Amino acid sequence: MSASRFSIEEEIPGRLGRAGRLETPHGVIETPAFVTVGTKATVKALTPEQVASLGAQVVLANTYHLYLEPGAEIVAQAGGLHQFMNWPGPAITDSGGFQVFSLGAAYGQGGVSKFVSDSSPIKGSTLKMPQGRTLGSEERLAKVDDDGVTFRSPIDGSEHRFTPESSIKIQQQLGADIIFAFDECTSPQASYEYQKEAMARTHTWAERSLAEFNQNPGRQSLFGIVQGGRHQDLREESARFIANLDFAGFGIGGSFNKEDLQTAVGWVNAILPRDKPRHLLGIGTVEDLFAGVEAGCDTFDCVAPTRMARNGTVETKRGRVNILNAKFKNDFTAVQTDCGCYTCQNYTKAYLAHLFRSKEMLAGTLASIHNLYFYVNLVAQMRATILSGTFEQFKTDFLANYKD
Amino acid sequence: MSASRFSIEEEIPGRLGRAGRLETPHGVIETPAFVTVGTKATVKALTPEQVASLGAQVVLANTYHLYLEPGAEIVAQAGGLHQFMNWPGPAITDSGGFQVFSLGAAYGQGGVSKFVSDSSPIKGSTLKMPQGRTLGSEERLAKVDDDGVTFRSPIDGSEHRFTPESSIKIQQQLGADIIFAFDECTSPQASYEYQKEAMARTHTWAERSLAEFNQNPGRQSLFGIVQGGRHQDLREESARFIANLDFAGFGIGGSFNKEDLQTAVGWVNAILPRDKPRHLLGIGTVEDLFAGVEAGCDTFDCVAPTRMARNGTVETKRGRVNILNAKFKNDFTAVQTDCGCYTCQNYTKAYLAHLFRSKEMLAGTLASIHNLYFYVNLVAQMRATILSGTFEQFKTDFLANYKD
Repeated sequence: MSASRFSIEEEIPGRLGRAGRLETPHGVIETPAFVTVGTKATVKALTPEQVASLGAQVVLANTYHLYLEPGAEIVAQAGGLHQFMNWPGPAITDSGGFQVFSLGAAYGQGGVSKFVSDSSPIKGSTLKMPQGRTLGSEERLAKVDDDGVTFRSPIDGSEHRFTPESSIKIQQQLGADIIFAFDECTSPQASYEYQKEAMARTHTWAERSLAEFNQNPGRQSLFGIVQGGRHQDLREESARFIANLDFAGFGIGGSFNKEDLQTAVGWVNAILPRDKPRHLLGIGTVEDLFAGVEAGCDTFDCVAPTRMARNGTVETKRGRVNILNAKFKNDFTAVQTDCGCYTCQNYTKAYLAHLFRSKEMLAGTLASIHNLYFYVNLVAQMRATILSGTFEQFKTDFLANYKD
Repeated sequence: MSASRFSIEEEIPGRLGRAGRLETPHGVIETPAFVTVGTKATVKALTPEQVASLGAQVVLANTYHLYLEPGAEIVAQAGGLHQFMNWPGPAITDSGGFQVFSLGAAYGQGGVSKFVSDSSPIKGSTLKMPQGRTLGSEERLAKVDDDGVTFRSPIDGSEHRFTPESSIKIQQQLGADIIFAFDECTSPQASYEYQKEAMARTHTWAERSLAEFNQNPGRQSLFGIVQGGRHQDLREESARFIANLDFAGFGIGGSFNKEDLQTAVGWVNAILPRDKPRHLLGIGTVEDLFAGVEAGCDTFDCVAPTRMARNGTVETKRGRVNILNAKFKNDFTAVQTDCGCYTCQNYTKAYLAHLFRSKEMLAGTLASIHNLYFYVNLVAQMRATILSGTFEQFKTDFLANYKD
């Protein structure tokens, strides 16, 4: 018996997409829903009240980051993630897999090395790390084996190891409502052979994650992760394998090319059981969200809205706008005049442009509120139009005006 | 007829200090009051709603900064400072004098050069500028003459000039409720002769500021500034001169040594008319605020609470605390357990310590809310104890526990 409960309210005729309700111990998530990312137990630049008042229902924090700083014990001693960060609503943690492989595990074996960009060859060069540190190539950051992953902290270079069991234990200490099985996230450039090998590891790790979780399920729900890269046979094999395990819901992992996303997600969701929720990990853009919802995903998380916001890029229904463009210096209208967000209701583009030019902290706050409102409410409108039977029309109309 | 009105409610027996009400076109300031600083039309890291909800009644923005960026015309076109920054309450601008002489005008004549620290000799060296720019000593930043000050922008090096007339015109464009006469702010190390010369200039500039202001007073009130350094004869001469001009209130300018402050302010306030409000510019610390209130000042502004906050230093009734101290990593109590601020009501020191270590923007926001609440409410308690006749007891008790 899972601590969360999912029910479907309406489906998109002839498609896999649906509107539903995901009940968690900390409240209901009306789906489809855009999940705000609070990487280090804070949605960057915002108070939890600001997050809630822009319409966000749920926050996703990253296990990798919280494990490294401040440490899962600190969060547990604080009473768990909700209490630590003062977020009373539903919360999710990922498994740490993605960050270990993309941030930490730049190389080690096979396809994993492909995460290093072409301009940073592995040998005889340096690798740009988060927070501006540069590590010499002799320092191995992560090494995957069948049992788990050994990696180095980008904060202090110390060595750490994640296994399916330790990832689950850490996520139990963090105490989110929904947690994820530990998986190996491959590069989209990895070979078929490496994808297959990594998928097999992900499947073994899914069984081990579930076994560990079931020793102490508490009030949490465990979601399994489907991998398999861009290959239809692997994706379908992974979906069948993960679907057969007793998970409360599913995550769809991996990187996609934009044109592949809806197809690949469709392969998976046609196999996953209809009555369990599906989270599309780390996606997306406006187009990706429409594609993901239509293909049957229920929740989505992405750092892009807040990351763009801190760089002065704001979303509008006609496309993205860089607020530092000189023409906005004396534009005394809102970012989007018919937007209902706090920022657009109270501030002009001229004020935002001034804050960004002056490097004022309020710049990031106001732009993040706007961008998160944009994404959260865009997906909420998808939900509303699924319920009213007008999703396809809404999608067509919206994308006709929106310039990527 | 001034657009603001001041009334005294109660006085400290045997002292110059008092509690009063300063009515402005945008609302009442109950005095004594700590004024929050919003240098560039934003109280750093906070929304106006956060500023209001911590108890702040009034915001002071800096004419020098807003003149340089985004420019007074932009603020005027936005409908003025209140509308530009979404602050509905009382607002103040300073004259730009202090910043021109301390930030811009490092040298030029006489005692003004003393603002350059001993480690930065004027010749053959470089001068550290705001925002990390370094200017060679050949670039003169400001030059004072009897008519005004010519200075260079630290943003782009362009040349600008402030006169009493231009300062007033700019402040009229910004549109704050209370504005200040243009003055020359001297270094506390300046010679007696230079202080006397600068004071004479400040007096002439006061008359010129008033004449310019009276051509278009609108709904603003103009305050005159008393200077005179640490010298009793100059301070008293300046107070007499400025008191005789038809200002709506007064500012007390200049730097003080801690031990001199109450004495010097006392000389001035014994001369200034009892029935007009007095603002102590750029002060202060906990001790300074008690001293200033006792000596008859009504309002105070200081960047220290928010600047300290962004560096992780938080105020408590027992003194300042650096939240980055290792012992706070697992301290699950509030910064001050009996503090009523949003931060202390909702977050632990462990969480703040984590946010500061992670360089999260919310760190500065939460610490700023706490520190501003501390100062705003400390001065509000001074007001309450003046009204109840217990100010001296409150001061003694508070300072007995507070370690500087």
